[in-house]
Amino acid sequence: MNPVNAFNEYRQKMNDQILASNNKIIKRIFNLDTNAFTEGAVPARTKEMLGLACSMVLRCDDCGKCHELGLSDEEINEVFALAILIGGTIVIPHLRRGTEYWENLKNNV
Amino acid sequence: MNPVNAFNEYRQKMNDQILASNNKIIKRIFNLDTNAFTEGAVPARTKEMLGLACSMVLRCDDCGKCHELGLSDEEINEVFALAILIGGTIVIPHLRRGTEYWENLKNNV
Amino acid sequence: MNPVNAFNEYRQKMNDQILASNNKIIKRIFNLDTNAFTEGAVPARTKEMLGLACSMVLRCDDCGKCHELGLSDEEINEVFALAILIGGTIVIPHLRRGTEYWENLKNNV
Amino acid sequence: MNPVNAFNEYRQKMNDQILASNNKIIKRIFNLDTNAFTEGAVPARTKEMLGLACSMVLRCDDCGKCHELGLSDEEINEVFALAILIGGTIVIPHLRRGTEYWENLKNNV
Amino acid sequence: MNPVNAFNEYRQKMNDQILASNNKIIKRIFNLDTNAFTEGAVPARTKEMLGLACSMVLRCDDCGKCHELGLSDEEINEVFALAILIGGTIVIPHLRRGTEYWENLKNNV
Amino acid sequence: MNPVNAFNEYRQKMNDQILASNNKIIKRIFNLDTNAFTEGAVPARTKEMLGLACSMVLRCDDCGKCHELGLSDEEINEVFALAILIGGTIVIPHLRRGTEYWENLKNNV
Repeated sequence: MNPVNAFNEYRQKMNDQILASNNKIIKRIFNLDTNAFTEGAVPARTKEMLGLACSMVLRCDDCGKCHELGLSDEEINEVFALAILIGGTIVIPHLRRGTEYWENLKNNV
Repeated sequence: MNPVNAFNEYRQKMNDQILASNNKIIKRIFNLDTNAFTEGAVPARTKEMLGLACSMVLRCDDCGKCHELGLSDEEINEVFALAILIGGTIVIPHLRRGTEYWENLKNNV
Repeated sequence: MNPVNAFNEYRQKMNDQILASNNKIIKRIFNLDTNAFTEGAVPARTKEMLGLACSMVLRCDDCGKCHELGLSDEEINEVFALAILIGGTIVIPHLRRGTEYWENLKNNV
Repeated sequence: MNPVNAFNEYRQKMNDQILASNNKIIKRIFNLDTNAFTEGAVPARTKEMLGLACSMVLRCDDCGKCHELGLSDEEINEVFALAILIGGTIVIPHLRRGTEYWENLKNNV
Repeated sequence: MNPVNAFNEYRQKMNDQILASNNKIIKRIFNLDTNAFTEGAVPARTKEMLGLACSMVLRCDDCGKCHELGLSDEEINEVFALAILIGGTIVIPHLRRGTEYWENLKNNV
Repeated sequence: MNPVNAFNEYRQKMNDQILASNNKIIKRIFNLDTNAFTEGAVPARTKEMLGLACSMVLRCDDCGKCHELGLSDEEINEVFALAILIGGTIVIPHLRRGTEYWENLKNNV
């Protein structure tokens, strides 16, 4: 299995298990996570960029969200650039993994 | 003096002092900070939202950058909403200060 | 006005202003923040200690939540001790402010 | 070897190597780490929950400590819920790994 | 009173209060904090630079430790430069406060 | 292939891919990253220790930089000790990986 599908499968399996706990707070946060990225005063597309930049400066390895962005390489690179400027070179290892994942996504189509 | 002007004055004074050090690395990072937020594949306006969201999730008190955004209240609120969702309730004190600052900016015109 | 009351007043005023924005995501997160700390499999009292420890390791200045804990000095000190052990000496300035605030709370009664 | 045992073995091996360095500061911190979680004004069981919540909001992958908690699923879920509320959705990938590890622990008996 | 003396006084007062708690873990960590910065395989002077750089990337406002460094302006600036490179522009507000504090220290003699 | 060479190869491959993006901000930050660690008022050797300590307190897994330090075991251990004191026990998992990597480096010669 390619790494993108493997990650999606893992994520789905663990999310199912987490939600099976029936903890109301956890369920609502997962729910908000879906609702917050819909079209509003700020377009959904911009919101995904916000989510990606925030994830990177917080040094998160899980770029799962960016995978249906429909963003161009140039847009992704500008978001990455802001992330390492604001978050510092400490974010570079995540930039590497983000870039690797992005390549996998493009080759996955 | 109102708080917005007081902050701008302090920021300018300290930036001048920092740049007077003539440290090449510091100068270039300040320089990049200006260049990175210009129009590109991602519009300048979106970049300012990215900067604001990243600052908030990193729990930064210095919202200096957002002050010429020309963003609407609704846009600011959606950016704030994503920031406390992604960054957690620990960001709420910064949401309070951000909201206070935003009000001061609007009353400053 | 003493510092505890001043802080409470500021917090209330800013929360009112934030909620007046009518942003659904923000409202729900504030709401969860209230619901999450109620009695459950984990007692409310333990949850407040969890909230306090998490705030300290994340280097948060807003200890507003701990103010109705009914915790003893010894309990507070053990929570503080874990926080600076796990979070490191970088948390010490927040330990100072937490201690100061705690004293103010006790003198406020 | 199952993942829980593999992790414990790796942790033990590396801790041995770290302590073999004979650096006094490192030794004392490891020592404090053991002493801090003993019974006191705050019960040991509550302290383990504090440790787990702090680790999660700081986005730590090493949940080694929680493995002898004797906590119920409901308690673990409430601690997890507080962690993603306070620390934000950025903590969710760690929630997945924490849940996975917890399952492994239960199947390990 | 000048800001440096005011800060030192506040720090001393709060440290005294914290240590008066007689919590063994807290006392030992404060103790380690003193011992760790003494001459060793790494010189004390280098250790103070390490402490300063770590504080800045962790966005700490309490530069109390650097105040008896005997470091030159050039050395301080190079440490600051590394801190904003590694930690990102989010560290700049702390760079401002650090620079301000450093100036106060020099004028304090 | 041994883990040190595998990591170096991965890092080189991803850096090449990142720089191939031709994003000016990203290129300049990578460039600064090289320039900032050269001899200056602070010796290059001290700068590498600063970089290592900052990486550890920020809980970075990528110790790539420390691999040509020429530092002694005692120096590395003192830097590690400061990092877990300042950054807290949450840094210990990274201490384990750092120690493992350091051993691999020594066995790699």
